[in-house]
Amino acid sequence: MDAAEFRKRGKEMVDYVADYLEKIEKRQVFPDVEPGYLRPLVADCAPQDPESFEDVFKDIEKIIMPGVTHWHSPYFFAYFPSASSFPALLADMLCGGIGCVGFSWAASPACTELETVMLDWLGKMVNLPKEFLAEKDGQGGGVIQGSASEATLIALLAARTKIIRQVQSEKPELTEAEIMGRLVAYASDQFCATLGTTSCCSFDKLLELGPICNKENIWMHIDAAYAGSAFICPEFRHLLNGVEFADSFNFNPHKWLLVNFDCSAMWVKKRSDLIGAFKLEPLYLQHHHQESGLVTDYRHWQIPLGRRFRSLKLWFVLRMYGVKGLQEHIRKHIRLSHQFEHLVLQDERFEICAEVVLGLVCFRLKGSNELNEALLKSINDAKKIHLVPCHLREKFVLRFAVCSRTVESTHIKFAWQHISQLATDLLKTWEHNHHQQ
Amino acid sequence: MDAAEFRKRGKEMVDYVADYLEKIEKRQVFPDVEPGYLRPLVADCAPQDPESFEDVFKDIEKIIMPGVTHWHSPYFFAYFPSASSFPALLADMLCGGIGCVGFSWAASPACTELETVMLDWLGKMVNLPKEFLAEKDGQGGGVIQGSASEATLIALLAARTKIIRQVQSEKPELTEAEIMGRLVAYASDQFCATLGTTSCCSFDKLLELGPICNKENIWMHIDAAYAGSAFICPEFRHLLNGVEFADSFNFNPHKWLLVNFDCSAMWVKKRSDLIGAFKLEPLYLQHHHQESGLVTDYRHWQIPLGRRFRSLKLWFVLRMYGVKGLQEHIRKHIRLSHQFEHLVLQDERFEICAEVVLGLVCFRLKGSNELNEALLKSINDAKKIHLVPCHLREKFVLRFAVCSRTVESTHIKFAWQHISQLATDLLKTWEHNHHQQ
Repeated sequence: MDAAEFRKRGKEMVDYVADYLEKIEKRQVFPDVEPGYLRPLVADCAPQDPESFEDVFKDIEKIIMPGVTHWHSPYFFAYFPSASSFPALLADMLCGGIGCVGFSWAASPACTELETVMLDWLGKMVNLPKEFLAEKDGQGGGVIQGSASEATLIALLAARTKIIRQVQSEKPELTEAEIMGRLVAYASDQFCATLGTTSCCSFDKLLELGPICNKENIWMHIDAAYAGSAFICPEFRHLLNGVEFADSFNFNPHKWLLVNFDCSAMWVKKRSDLIGAFKLEPLYLQHHHQESGLVTDYRHWQIPLGRRFRSLKLWFVLRMYGVKGLQEHIRKHIRLSHQFEHLVLQDERFEICAEVVLGLVCFRLKGSNELNEALLKSINDAKKIHLVPCHLREKFVLRFAVCSRTVESTHIKFAWQHISQLATDLLKTWEHNHHQQ
Repeated sequence: MDAAEFRKRGKEMVDYVADYLEKIEKRQVFPDVEPGYLRPLVADCAPQDPESFEDVFKDIEKIIMPGVTHWHSPYFFAYFPSASSFPALLADMLCGGIGCVGFSWAASPACTELETVMLDWLGKMVNLPKEFLAEKDGQGGGVIQGSASEATLIALLAARTKIIRQVQSEKPELTEAEIMGRLVAYASDQFCATLGTTSCCSFDKLLELGPICNKENIWMHIDAAYAGSAFICPEFRHLLNGVEFADSFNFNPHKWLLVNFDCSAMWVKKRSDLIGAFKLEPLYLQHHHQESGLVTDYRHWQIPLGRRFRSLKLWFVLRMYGVKGLQEHIRKHIRLSHQFEHLVLQDERFEICAEVVLGLVCFRLKGSNELNEALLKSINDAKKIHLVPCHLREKFVLRFAVCSRTVESTHIKFAWQHISQLATDLLKTWEHNHHQQ
């Protein structure tokens, strides 16, 4: 395929993607396929000779789409949102076209510098303390990781390296293994200090944890993967109070800030803590600017060596939505979750299981776990909407997460009426069976 | 931006990317900017109100492009290739449009199943032993990681978990920390068993290492990040002999197989070794198929939880190039590296520093390291081509890596004439200065 054919096919693909997203509501949100559906539909091995774009293109609807869970359907209420927006898609096309690998400043200066500045923009949007910003001569700064798990791992490894070096300088007779065996990581069952847990969007009390960590010289990492995006709204920023005690902080614009996966934003107060743990300097990666102290080489901030030009997505989204546009998006989702909460509260058969703070509603039928498992099964078997459950203090609970960029009040009403009807049907059978037993 | 505007802007972006790649040769391969160039060109913080696409679009040439190192220029001979092709760009547009997160089979069955089948295709293309394939009921299988570093880390963690459990079952009195303190990882200065090192594309002797690892019950991981793509050509497959002794194997189609970054392919003989180390089962990620043993949940195979639909890129590229088209690409690059090698060998002032096996030529002026450092500096300061150096046994060596998809014999000739002329100029000054001292 040459550039001329790419112009033609690329435009067809733009239309396909636009069609897909415009009409996604008409597709069944969860697929009908059974495990192993795909293998018999494709060849046993790669073709020796090239196939045409048409051959491949027609297989998208035939082979791929029947097995897709439509995360951007307004009937998708499972997990947490995965961000998607047109400006981010455009930026990713540009990112692919440039196709640079930004492991060092010299490998593509724009890739590094835009990232540093965009993380400053984003940090200011959530009103992070100044120590987390890079600005012209700060000690801190931000980096884009692939996921919150990677950010947590990076924080853990940096903390470990820092404390090992400190102990080694005080007690040089100890080996690294001996020190490691004595290190302790304090965590809840959600691991680190978490703002907006996946199960029920609960919040750790940073203002209690923070001072203890600081006093005891414990590295404090805060994971706000989902909730972090909400802190761009002044009325939710108080949930982040206490971040000033942290050493590192992370949230995922690829969840709730309309920046397509992957874009997990991480900040540290002292970039030297990260670089100290991961520094890698083979000759082929060195460049004459690095000794100046003026440049950032992001390979020292992460596990992988290679990295894409992901800050373009942030740049496009932040500019083309503006802070106000993004705030509107967050506020709409939170308004819709409260709409759902109120619908649940009006039905005496149901209960709300956790405070609704952001875009997640945890609810259940009053009754046994088995009853609620059966309700969830009937919801997901009907495939008109899609939800996943969680456990809250031994209780089986249904999670209703407002996810899609295009979800509106009508979808929420439909979802509730549907759930309510399925509950009615279920309770009839359930009571009948129960009566017979 | 709605779908209608995306149709318009998406097509403009397709044309921009096509223009960029079609005319990339005319851009200076390495940028002129100095550290910190970008910050003064952009606002201090994100705008409150939305900006238009035109505003953002015009800033690409104004702010971004002046700071881009053009990895796909046919004058780029630095590092190793980063793959780029039009079919991969199309697939990535589709991947972004679908925007699913494939952490479990249920989260998007197509995303998981296509990946498993594509890794089988790719495994067969390099003629991996059958134990590494998933097929219908294999014990092994492949997974796409973000980078070779992640694959190595995964292998290391899986190996560690496996041996710790084994020792614990034999000596239950030992704590995990005590066992960890006694574990040994054997590595060269390139770490694990490596096929095609970054410095000079050298190859470890798998047929010697492998039997020892097997006998001593040592996990053997093979990293063929760059070289692996060449094994699709029968005449280079012998370089992979000995892979049958390995537990895990990895190479990067995003380097040399025309699949845009990121797409690092990793295979294991026993998928249970990976899953054992990383298994994660909160209720909200469980689905009723997982107990059947029929499905793969890739979240157990990697560090991150989330994952994009990256196998689409493999599917598009393998089908639209065909095995023969990809073999041609590899063979062209290797032919061009030998062309460069011959040009170097004809000039008595130069020497070749390592056997040219694939697409990398390591060469230097006969003389001091300082002389070669000066030569590299004059090459990179001229910015007509771009190279990076390496150290081989204390010697400062220039690496000439054939990188671009569109590089041809004329570019190789130009590069050599340019280097040769700069060497002539340098040697004049050098001898003059040397004479004066």
